[in-house]
Amino acid sequence: MKYPGGIKKQGSSSINYANRGMNFEADINVTNSYYINNDIAVIYKKPTPITINKVDYKSRVDAVITEAHFNTPSTTDYNGIYKGKYIDFEAKETKQNYFPLSNIHKHQIEHLNKIVRHGGIGFILVNFVKLNKIYLLEAEKLCSFIESNERKSIPIEYFENYGYLIKPKFNPRIDYLNIIDQIYYGGKL
Amino acid sequence: MKYPGGIKKQGSSSINYANRGMNFEADINVTNSYYINNDIAVIYKKPTPITINKVDYKSRVDAVITEAHFNTPSTTDYNGIYKGKYIDFEAKETKQNYFPLSNIHKHQIEHLNKIVRHGGIGFILVNFVKLNKIYLLEAEKLCSFIESNERKSIPIEYFENYGYLIKPKFNPRIDYLNIIDQIYYGGKL
Repeated sequence: MKYPGGIKKQGSSSINYANRGMNFEADINVTNSYYINNDIAVIYKKPTPITINKVDYKSRVDAVITEAHFNTPSTTDYNGIYKGKYIDFEAKETKQNYFPLSNIHKHQIEHLNKIVRHGGIGFILVNFVKLNKIYLLEAEKLCSFIESNERKSIPIEYFENYGYLIKPKFNPRIDYLNIIDQIYYGGKL
Repeated sequence: MKYPGGIKKQGSSSINYANRGMNFEADINVTNSYYINNDIAVIYKKPTPITINKVDYKSRVDAVITEAHFNTPSTTDYNGIYKGKYIDFEAKETKQNYFPLSNIHKHQIEHLNKIVRHGGIGFILVNFVKLNKIYLLEAEKLCSFIESNERKSIPIEYFENYGYLIKPKFNPRIDYLNIIDQIYYGGKL
């Protein structure tokens, strides 16, 4: 059986995840495409929020933005629908053995809090690059840590105790909906 | 009682909607802000999808995009959550007494179709500028028109018969969730 890049499958341990940290966003996008193409869920990454200052209309169909600025995001990067439920999450990575809270904007945490209050499913995906581990942490757990702590970072132990480790797979690569199934629908891990 | 712009309220008929067509997107954004600020719903406009080609990093904090292109949207402009339900819609305006289907991308119609299939609420808001009327048309009705017709535009009568007229209000300006309440939760019109 052949896989993209000519890698032969020799068991799941043969997957090279050494560079996965660099491709975290790409892997999530590929995962979301898998969900959409297989009619499992409709979840997209939002475009980068920018303010457009100047546009050069070279022709009727071709406009080029010649000056724009990045905005601070007021929401998270990903949202969509799964099994009738609203899904909302932010994906972050860290090279540390802890998750610095400076990695996530205050607005984004407030946004996730609102989502949960309105009956949606909110979480963060954190890629611990050096540990080669990706955890899903529910927004409720994220918020309760922040409310009950003065700490500026969340230790890995908190993820181990209250989060969910996402097992590496070929396809979908980062199968976070498997965890959502487990939490909300009593599915198998 | 004073209103922004120094307009005195003399009854709801005194609202000047003559230029509303020009401010349709702004009015929807104000409406969404009202919903968020009053903790009614969490619905945002997605940023404009672009491909960034060149970024000038003038300083550590200030990056300027110097070349970017607009992408064709694969989803709709607005999504979020209301009463635990996933909400997804596209807003369009027309100066005609009909809605040209060329105004909405095929991808967007397919997207709305998926949303409905996955248990979400999908619709379009159409502002008939000259008629000074805004209609909400459910994705199901939009799709069934397209499937059963060869026509390249939807006549206003279809909106009158199968859509919902949004009554003008001061705040929220375009109260589309009032219609959603009516359709899905048996609320009053």
